[in-house]
Amino acid sequence: MSATDKVNLQDVKTAYTRIKSYIKKTPVFQDGEFDTKYGRNFFFKAESMQVTGAFKFRGALNAVLKARENGENINGLVSHSSGNHGKALAFIARKYGMKCVIVCPTTTPESKRQLIRDLGAELILCKPDFDERLQICMKIEKERPGFLYVSTCDDYDVIAGQGTMALELLDQVNDLDAILVPCSGGGMAAGICIAAKALKPDIQIYIVEPVGKELEKCLRAGKRLWPNSSGSINTIADGMRRYDLGHKTWPIVLELAEKDVFTITDEEAIEGMKYGFEHLKLVVESSAGTSIAAAMSSKLDTLVPRGRNVGVILSGGNVDFSNLPF
Amino acid sequence: MSATDKVNLQDVKTAYTRIKSYIKKTPVFQDGEFDTKYGRNFFFKAESMQVTGAFKFRGALNAVLKARENGENINGLVSHSSGNHGKALAFIARKYGMKCVIVCPTTTPESKRQLIRDLGAELILCKPDFDERLQICMKIEKERPGFLYVSTCDDYDVIAGQGTMALELLDQVNDLDAILVPCSGGGMAAGICIAAKALKPDIQIYIVEPVGKELEKCLRAGKRLWPNSSGSINTIADGMRRYDLGHKTWPIVLELAEKDVFTITDEEAIEGMKYGFEHLKLVVESSAGTSIAAAMSSKLDTLVPRGRNVGVILSGGNVDFSNLPF
Repeated sequence: MSATDKVNLQDVKTAYTRIKSYIKKTPVFQDGEFDTKYGRNFFFKAESMQVTGAFKFRGALNAVLKARENGENINGLVSHSSGNHGKALAFIARKYGMKCVIVCPTTTPESKRQLIRDLGAELILCKPDFDERLQICMKIEKERPGFLYVSTCDDYDVIAGQGTMALELLDQVNDLDAILVPCSGGGMAAGICIAAKALKPDIQIYIVEPVGKELEKCLRAGKRLWPNSSGSINTIADGMRRYDLGHKTWPIVLELAEKDVFTITDEEAIEGMKYGFEHLKLVVESSAGTSIAAAMSSKLDTLVPRGRNVGVILSGGNVDFSNLPF
Repeated sequence: MSATDKVNLQDVKTAYTRIKSYIKKTPVFQDGEFDTKYGRNFFFKAESMQVTGAFKFRGALNAVLKARENGENINGLVSHSSGNHGKALAFIARKYGMKCVIVCPTTTPESKRQLIRDLGAELILCKPDFDERLQICMKIEKERPGFLYVSTCDDYDVIAGQGTMALELLDQVNDLDAILVPCSGGGMAAGICIAAKALKPDIQIYIVEPVGKELEKCLRAGKRLWPNSSGSINTIADGMRRYDLGHKTWPIVLELAEKDVFTITDEEAIEGMKYGFEHLKLVVESSAGTSIAAAMSSKLDTLVPRGRNVGVILSGGNVDFSNLPF
């Protein structure tokens, strides 16, 4: 069975038709000094400028609009989120006059929690344990009539929605050789894999992860090596604290992404974020800093020849300015 | 005598031909939420993303390249600067293997001073008094053979260089009705007036100033009401601390800009800057915050009808992140 049996390029294109009048076609930035220093042509895709400040809006909106198209009578949205998915859902709920409940781990920065509350959503705090979060969501979906649970990543409609950024990026940049993609649960990585590999089979999709995730070991072994019930990774990249990939995203990433993974320390993520602020003049969060750090890393030299065109996904820009790490 | 006797659209076009392979064509951003809230279509021109992080690079580069074209044997650059002009000159000097001396008032943030030093320039600190700064520069130009003094604003080549951003903006946005331009010595305001009014005579150029400058009073009186020897304005917008316009920029602004001026308080500039970070996801300095604040102001309602297209110049993005004002 192939990864594309469940979600394919056509699903991503249909998702784009569905959401494109509501999302931003996010701009792509280049930086000549960066290119000279690191020896390739880098194309920074600023999902930080997406509606609600992160790529999450694409997938969440696709899932909600598709459920509505299918005649589901939805009057509320529920999910768990470390921030950006929650903000996206709360924004969508407000837009369509629905209720919204976000189950949020206590490790989520207060600034992100407040953004969700400001959009009118109900916030339920829980331990940073993935299984507990999911159980609370399931309970709410069951108990409150008309509530739809929208997964942060492990849903084919969410994956197709995130993949729309690859449609844009391959349209914006001619002859892209590789893409560096930050990864938590894997929704964005899977979506980009599905769309980009279908449009350009020789493109290389490299996953960027925080230290502790050990995705490369799993990809090389060809199997999930994470414990079933996982806590959370101790990383500054607050959008990337989940250990394992989802059960729907994992087979896609395994089949289509490169086996070499960029594993980023906190110090490197902060350096990447700082570069974004100081030189790109873009507000980017630490999770986006990880992909800039990957672009700066010597590992890229071993994988992608000099002179090639490399896309760098800047996943989000929701930052607590009272607590900048640099 | 008309303002355009000394510098005109053709000079701006020639400047653009001269500098365009070195500068960035800076992007223009829109924000649907901002447009809805403030009732017009706003186009944010991100000179914050210009080489060296501010529009100053355009004018300084044009002046230096033109002097070289004219056969002047230049081996050093000197000017006074509160930061961005100095950074631009230091960058140009390093690029062409010249020496560089920047006379810098003690009120300039340390972060901006360090950026100038990092580019290899010699920094001379002085009192924040415009006349003293100028005298030190003149002495250096006289005493050091081959040194060229490049004015921050009061030079027709600098004015023509800054005007190139209006060529871009009017090409990037169809049917622009007005532009909001932050103003200190007036080089950018004059350049934009020259280019934009020649290309589109009915466009309105509105000056944005910090409290204390009292430019509107001067424009309405049709004469310079500033004391000859001026100190500096006490404003958070560290790129806008000069009281008076230059003697070359003033007649251009008087003839071509609107008489209504947007006068911005520190609190408003900070709100504008904060909006830039939080919603546009752009790193903008407080001087750029003044033009965002002007776009948010109720005064705009009295001057530009709803539904019109308004350009907003984001002058720079050189920010001290350890000292954000919000």
